[in-house]
Amino acid sequence: LIAEQCAKLFTSNSLSGLDVVITAGPTREAIDPVRFISNHSSGKMGYALAEAARDAGARVTIISGPVRLDAPEKVTVIQVESASEMLAASLEQQKNCDIFIAAAAVADYRPLQVAQQKIKKAGEQMQIALVKNPDIVATIATLDTPPFVVGFAAETQDVATYARGKLESKNLKMIIANDVSNADIGFNSDSNSVTVFWGENQQDFPRMSKSALSNELIELIAHQYTVNSNPENK
Amino acid sequence: LIAEQCAKLFTSNSLSGLDVVITAGPTREAIDPVRFISNHSSGKMGYALAEAARDAGARVTIISGPVRLDAPEKVTVIQVESASEMLAASLEQQKNCDIFIAAAAVADYRPLQVAQQKIKKAGEQMQIALVKNPDIVATIATLDTPPFVVGFAAETQDVATYARGKLESKNLKMIIANDVSNADIGFNSDSNSVTVFWGENQQDFPRMSKSALSNELIELIAHQYTVNSNPENK
Repeated sequence: LIAEQCAKLFTSNSLSGLDVVITAGPTREAIDPVRFISNHSSGKMGYALAEAARDAGARVTIISGPVRLDAPEKVTVIQVESASEMLAASLEQQKNCDIFIAAAAVADYRPLQVAQQKIKKAGEQMQIALVKNPDIVATIATLDTPPFVVGFAAETQDVATYARGKLESKNLKMIIANDVSNADIGFNSDSNSVTVFWGENQQDFPRMSKSALSNELIELIAHQYTVNSNPENK
Repeated sequence: LIAEQCAKLFTSNSLSGLDVVITAGPTREAIDPVRFISNHSSGKMGYALAEAARDAGARVTIISGPVRLDAPEKVTVIQVESASEMLAASLEQQKNCDIFIAAAAVADYRPLQVAQQKIKKAGEQMQIALVKNPDIVATIATLDTPPFVVGFAAETQDVATYARGKLESKNLKMIIANDVSNADIGFNSDSNSVTVFWGENQQDFPRMSKSALSNELIELIAHQYTVNSNPENK
């Protein structure tokens, strides 16, 4: 009973009836059948946002790169490996989606060629030619009738400058920025500290658990989604 | 009681009193603070061999790249990330080691330079310059007074040819070869099928669980170790 009442404190119904799609985790870009390029994303932030959105009443789908997290209860998880697979799933899922949150750490580049056999060790040095991956969040946000798109910016320097630049250039409604140079927060940590930018505004969220932070972020996103859908409420 | 008797069937004491060091898992080679090159090794084979060696009476140390496996009971686990870290730990641990089993999938190459800040997305293409990593198993096997060194060969083609080549060129006592082009066995699977080469000999092990296979491999390794230590027993 106490647990139920506690749960209610975090169950605002602010996203009641809405469809939310969240990308999460890293992508893996194959070099050959055994090797790949990836990154340190654990997927914890995206999965925590999914739970918070579900608790706020949304129907939630996670498009997830390879992570070691269990699917949250009552959340649909679509498993992908590469950025190309994540883009295809995102284009499909955005069709029936009100809010699209791009929390995945998508590889910016993939190997130009994927070797069909394991590349044999040869010279002292070698080069891997990389080609830019599709920008998933920008692709979704620049569709003719896009959902309300929230991006992430994981930076190690000049966080605000890069985040504001991405907000504008990618046509995002909001961007959540965190400084991944701090090992205590971010990728593999259970806590995080972020700054959210939208329009001319920004709001700092001090370090807290990814679960608590996600509840606060979902409330802010839900509010801005409502303002955006009904401009006269502004 | 039945469990104990079953356990005894697999407890040969064939490695009683010996120190065994086993490398396991992938290595991760940093590109920048968030990106890395790695491979699909799960570490399951190395960890299963560690359990089998422990059950055969050895004191066992695993030098482990990043995996999602729990440390086996009564086995020491030393955590490393990169090939350079794995080499340093291997050189230290081989000092008090009778048998060294190199089951890790060590990255053959690492980025020539590790960027201190996250590399910003720039042109449509980019190049990563790679430099060859130290060959850990060959380094250990060519020391003045090496332990009994067992290597692995994960290949996608011409498995026997490559395995026999590595056995000789790396000065190994034995090599365990498997064909990682078969998705049903190897890296992420719970079962495996291998061929072991030593001297002019070879022995095929049909597909079985990595646990059962490890018990058979440890018996073969223990036998060859004894033959090698007392050539008149041959």
